[in-house]
Amino acid sequence: MELLEERIRQQGRVLPGGVVQVDAFLNHQIDPILADAIAEEFVRRFQGERISKVLTIETSGIAFAILVALRLKVPLLFAKKRPGSNQGGAKQYTASVRSFTKGGVNTIGVSRDYLLRQDRVLVIDDFMAMGEAAEGLCSLVRQAGAALAGVGVVIEKAFQPGGDRLRAQGIRVEALARILEIGADGAIRFD
Amino acid sequence: MELLEERIRQQGRVLPGGVVQVDAFLNHQIDPILADAIAEEFVRRFQGERISKVLTIETSGIAFAILVALRLKVPLLFAKKRPGSNQGGAKQYTASVRSFTKGGVNTIGVSRDYLLRQDRVLVIDDFMAMGEAAEGLCSLVRQAGAALAGVGVVIEKAFQPGGDRLRAQGIRVEALARILEIGADGAIRFD
Repeated sequence: MELLEERIRQQGRVLPGGVVQVDAFLNHQIDPILADAIAEEFVRRFQGERISKVLTIETSGIAFAILVALRLKVPLLFAKKRPGSNQGGAKQYTASVRSFTKGGVNTIGVSRDYLLRQDRVLVIDDFMAMGEAAEGLCSLVRQAGAALAGVGVVIEKAFQPGGDRLRAQGIRVEALARILEIGADGAIRFD
Repeated sequence: MELLEERIRQQGRVLPGGVVQVDAFLNHQIDPILADAIAEEFVRRFQGERISKVLTIETSGIAFAILVALRLKVPLLFAKKRPGSNQGGAKQYTASVRSFTKGGVNTIGVSRDYLLRQDRVLVIDDFMAMGEAAEGLCSLVRQAGAALAGVGVVIEKAFQPGGDRLRAQGIRVEALARILEIGADGAIRFD
């Protein structure tokens, strides 16, 4: 997605350790016009998939996922980290997710009341690197016995194994910007 | 907002301790059509306020805030809990916020790069009870020297002091559903 790559080139910052910081327009401050164009592109790519639910994980996937859900007119469900608090003891599907940027392992969960066997689920997230968050979300879909239409990520760090690991499982992964390489000078090369 | 009160009556669940659970359509599963109607109503109420930025706090305010930001065509900024990680050492405005539903005290923060002296800020959140999150967000706005257009909350528990405490400071608070009372039988009475 040309518009997105252009913004990453203009406003993204490469931090030590290959972290691409897109805080200015994507995951701290968010440009809603760009976010809605991103949602439109996800909807275009997954057209005809008869999606009944959009699933994401808190926090930064929510803005994109709600815009996708609004365009599809289907509910958005977001998995919570530290599930169980304020849930009134509702039964959960859970999965363990390691975070490479923040460190540590989170348990993520969704209520069994809202992820249903008859659902066709589109997973949306902002970033994919090691793919642990997306794998966790796909695991929740499997546990519910629901169908997985695919995974849409805004930015894939294609030099890390997450996306290809999911594709190797037969999962359709659509990334709107695929970063192939970050040069020693911080230059970002896209697919 | 009639439509919202109706949904709370139909799908909300009252848990012990006066917690109103709206997980089915507002803060775990989200109905995007309702969320967009909520955003439209916020925009109507704050019409003419020349808002330049929408500010919320992760997690469950984001869905409403991005829809407001999209309608206003201004950036959304969301404060992070545990700020500092993955921020590349960017300078932050921070505030301490106690959580009554989850327990404990969070430090919330936004980058100084994105909350500016010339901003006119609309604070959006899903719930207001003790008002600590909104107070924290207003503190961030003050620290930046920005102007506060007001605070929009989806649901105010008006029998708790948060909203009135903010109003007593001269802050304009708009709540789309104000819960006056929760009966012993779990019946919810609105303003």
